[in-house]
Amino acid sequence: MAGVQREKWRSDFPRWFDWIIREAEVYDYGRYPVKGMGIWMPYGFQIRRRIIDVIRGVLDPLGHEEVLFPLLIPEDLLRRESEHIRGFEDEVYWVTHGGLEPLDVKLALRPTSETSITYMETFWIHSYKQLPKKYYQIVSIFRYETKATRPMIRLREVTTFKEAHTVHDSFEDAERQVLEAIDAYKRIYDELAIPYLVSRRPDWDKFAGALYTIAFDTVLPDGRVLQIGTVHNLGQNFTKAFDFKIQLRDESLDHPWQTSYGISDRVVATVIAIHGDDRGLILPPNVAPVQVVVIPIPSGDEERKKRVVEEAKRIAEELRSAGYRVHVDDREGERPGAKFYHWEARGVPVRVEVGARELEKGEATVAARDTLERRSVPLDRLPAEIGKELESLRERLHRRAWEWLSSNVAKLRSVKEAKRVLEERRGVVELPWCGKDECAQKLEEDLGARALGYPWPREAAEGEACPVCGEPAITWMRYAKTY
Amino acid sequence: MAGVQREKWRSDFPRWFDWIIREAEVYDYGRYPVKGMGIWMPYGFQIRRRIIDVIRGVLDPLGHEEVLFPLLIPEDLLRRESEHIRGFEDEVYWVTHGGLEPLDVKLALRPTSETSITYMETFWIHSYKQLPKKYYQIVSIFRYETKATRPMIRLREVTTFKEAHTVHDSFEDAERQVLEAIDAYKRIYDELAIPYLVSRRPDWDKFAGALYTIAFDTVLPDGRVLQIGTVHNLGQNFTKAFDFKIQLRDESLDHPWQTSYGISDRVVATVIAIHGDDRGLILPPNVAPVQVVVIPIPSGDEERKKRVVEEAKRIAEELRSAGYRVHVDDREGERPGAKFYHWEARGVPVRVEVGARELEKGEATVAARDTLERRSVPLDRLPAEIGKELESLRERLHRRAWEWLSSNVAKLRSVKEAKRVLEERRGVVELPWCGKDECAQKLEEDLGARALGYPWPREAAEGEACPVCGEPAITWMRYAKTY
Repeated sequence: MAGVQREKWRSDFPRWFDWIIREAEVYDYGRYPVKGMGIWMPYGFQIRRRIIDVIRGVLDPLGHEEVLFPLLIPEDLLRRESEHIRGFEDEVYWVTHGGLEPLDVKLALRPTSETSITYMETFWIHSYKQLPKKYYQIVSIFRYETKATRPMIRLREVTTFKEAHTVHDSFEDAERQVLEAIDAYKRIYDELAIPYLVSRRPDWDKFAGALYTIAFDTVLPDGRVLQIGTVHNLGQNFTKAFDFKIQLRDESLDHPWQTSYGISDRVVATVIAIHGDDRGLILPPNVAPVQVVVIPIPSGDEERKKRVVEEAKRIAEELRSAGYRVHVDDREGERPGAKFYHWEARGVPVRVEVGARELEKGEATVAARDTLERRSVPLDRLPAEIGKELESLRERLHRRAWEWLSSNVAKLRSVKEAKRVLEERRGVVELPWCGKDECAQKLEEDLGARALGYPWPREAAEGEACPVCGEPAITWMRYAKTY
Repeated sequence: MAGVQREKWRSDFPRWFDWIIREAEVYDYGRYPVKGMGIWMPYGFQIRRRIIDVIRGVLDPLGHEEVLFPLLIPEDLLRRESEHIRGFEDEVYWVTHGGLEPLDVKLALRPTSETSITYMETFWIHSYKQLPKKYYQIVSIFRYETKATRPMIRLREVTTFKEAHTVHDSFEDAERQVLEAIDAYKRIYDELAIPYLVSRRPDWDKFAGALYTIAFDTVLPDGRVLQIGTVHNLGQNFTKAFDFKIQLRDESLDHPWQTSYGISDRVVATVIAIHGDDRGLILPPNVAPVQVVVIPIPSGDEERKKRVVEEAKRIAEELRSAGYRVHVDDREGERPGAKFYHWEARGVPVRVEVGARELEKGEATVAARDTLERRSVPLDRLPAEIGKELESLRERLHRRAWEWLSSNVAKLRSVKEAKRVLEERRGVVELPWCGKDECAQKLEEDLGARALGYPWPREAAEGEACPVCGEPAITWMRYAKTY
C-alpha cells in the first residue's frame, strides 16, 4: 500500500515499538498525564490475558497457588529487611493521606511483595509438613523510576507483575525450587517462542535481599538486551527479619528458606518486539486474540458481492467450530488492501481471502502473516490446512527468534574486539573471567556495557585468561548494552 | 462431629461470615497490618476467579471491551467534575512522595475511574460512528472508609471492582444502555443464584456525578440489606467537565452521553453469605473450584484399603473425563469424618464416598452438599447422576435464595408496623410514597433505616397515601437496615 505510515522494525526499533503499540491498539502510552503509566487497550489487553494464561498454565500444575495481597505495605513492614529497603528506598511511592487526614503510618505502594507475604506466612505456616509452599500473584507494582521510562519496558506502574514466593524446610529444597523456577520460565518462554540467555547475575546486581539472582535476558531487534525474568534464592534473609520459624522434621524450630521469582509486562513487550516486522506484529497463535481473519473480496454485481460475504461468514463459522479464534472483516466502505494492512499490523497469524472467482472453483486464498505467501486451498481442506499453517508459522517464529539470539552472542577474547562488537551491532559478548568482581566491573566501564553475569549453569573456560588481570579464567562473563 | 467449631449461619451471621472465610481459606482478614485490607487465599481466589469469568461471560458478548487503566489519578483530573470530587474527597488516598522526594502533583489511588477514562476517551473517540463504546476493567479501588470496615463487604481496598464505562451519541442511547446494563447484571446474578431487588436510588443517594442511579440490593441471612451493584446514567456531566466532544450524525459537535456501572468484591461475599448453612459454604457448581470430592473409605486389610484408594482415583479420573472439576482426598491419617467436615465447610457441591463393600456391589455413595442426603449409585451411572445432582443442587440453591428474599420484602401501610418489622426481622419494607424527598427522609429517621429507592421499573401505588403527608402515593419506597 502506498502512503501508509510504517516504521522499520530492526533498523529503527524504538520508533517502531512506539508506533506499533499505538497502531495495533496494544498500549496507549505518553498521553496519560502521569509519567511512566499507560493504558492497556482492548486488543493489547487480550494479548496480555493470553500470555497470563500461558504463565498460569505452567505454574499451576507445578503446585503454585494463586493469591492476592494488598497493594499497600506499611512502612515498618517494608523496612524490616534492611538490604531490601536499601535497594528500594529511592523508588517507593508513599501514600501519606486518607481523605484530608494525614495517616499515622506511611503506606508504600508495593514495589514487590516479599515483606507482606513473609509477614502473613508467619500466621499460615508452622511445620515442615506444610512445605514446600508456592504462592504467586499477578499484580501492579510501582517504582518511582528516575531513569528514562519506556512503554511496557521501564514503567512506573508495572501492571503485569507475576511474582512467585516459595517456602522450604531446607537450603537444599530452596535450591531445588530455583531449578524448578528456571525450568518453568524456560517453558513459559518456549511457549511464547521467545529466546533467552540464562545468567547468574553478578553479586553487586542481585535482588535486594537475595543470596543470589538468576536472570533471563533476551536481545531485542536493535541489539539491546532486555531482562525478562529473575529467580532469587532468598535464603533465610526475610524469614529471619520477620522471625518466621517452623517446626522441622527433627522437631527443632528454625527459620525456613525462601525463593521468589518474577516476570513483568516485559514478557508482553518481548512477544511484540521479537516477533515483529516492518508491517507490525506477528503473534504466536496461542496468544493471538484473532488467529484467522477472513476477508471477503467482493466483485461483480450486488448479488454476487452479497454471496461472497455470506460465504466468508460460513467459512468463518466452520473454522470456529474447528476451534480457531476467527474474525470476519466485513466492514463496508473499506477496501481489501486497507483491511490487509489493518490485520497485518495486528499480527493475525493467518488471513483467508474469499473471492467470487475462487469460490466458483471451491477454493479460498490463505496467507501466513510472517511469509505473506498466498496459496489457494480447497474449501473442504481449509480447517486442516489452517491448523498446519498455524503450527508451521509458530515453528518459523521460534527458529527465527533463536537464530537471531545465537547470531548476537559472541565469545571473544579481546576487549577491543568486544568494544567494537558492542558498538557496531550490540548483542551480547562473552569474555573470559577470573571470578573477581573488580575485573568485571572494570570491563563494565571500559566497554560502556553492563555485566549480565556468567552463563547458568556455569560454563568452564579452560585455558582462557581474564583479559583484565591475566589470571586463569573460571568461566565467561557476559556484557551487553541493556534497556 | 463432636467438638468442631461451627457458627450459626442465620442466627449469628456476622460471626459465621468471619468464621467461614477463614475456615474455608477464602479471605484472610484482620491480621494484615492495614485496616480494611485482606488477602485472597488460594481457595477464595479460585472462587473469585470463576465469578469474574461469569461476569466476563456476560459482558464480552454484549460488546464490552476489557481494558486496564492506571491506578493513579492526578489531583486535577479527579477534581475536574465538581460533584464527583465532593462525593469522594473525604475518602481518597493520596500519594504524595516518590522515593524521598515530594511529588509535584498529588496522585489519588483511584476510588473509581470516570475521570481518567473520560480523559483518555477525548483522544480515542471523535465521531458517532465509533459509538456506542463500552469499556470495562476489573481492578482494585481504594476508599478511606470511616465507617466500620467488614471483610469483603466494606473494605478500604476493594480488590474486585468491575467498572464499566460507556459512551453514546444521544441521551436515548445512554438510556438504552442503562437497560442493557440492568439486564446484564440480572443475568450475572442469575448465574450465581443470587436474588436481587432493583431500585431507583433516591436522588440524595445517587452516585456523585450521575443523573440517577439504579441499584441492585439483596438481603443477607441476618436480614440486613447489601447493595451489590449499581448502574449510573452520567448524562453529559463528565463529558462537559472534560470538554469531550464528538461529531454527531448531523455533523454538529456535541458532548456525548455516558453511563457507568459497577460490581465489587461484594458479589463474592454474597455468593458465600446467601448460599451457606451452619456447616459452611454451599457453592453453585459453576463457581466451585472443586465440584466433586471423592473420598475413599478404607476398611479391612492393607490390600483391600489400597484397592479402595485406587478405585477412588479411577472414579475421579472418569469424572474428570466427563468434564467435572474433581479432587480425591486420599490424605492418610485423616479420618473420613474429618474429611467430610473439611469439604463441607468449603462448599463442594457433591461428595462421592468410595467404600470396599459398596465397590463389591459396583456402587458408590453420592451426597449433595445442601441436603446432605446420601444415596447409592451404580458406578457406570456415576457421571450422569452427578451431572443431574449438580443441576438440581443449583436449582435448589436458586429457589431457596429467592424464597428467602421474597419472604423478606413486606408491602405495608403503617409506619409503626414497618418499624416493628425492621426491628424484629429486618428485611425490606415498602411503604407508599408521594414522591417528595422530605417525606422519605423523614421516614428514614423514624424507621432508623435507609431508603433504598422505589422499585425499578416503577411500580404504581394506586389508591395509596403517603404515610407522612397523606398525599396520594405515586409509587412505593423501600426501606431497610443496610450494611
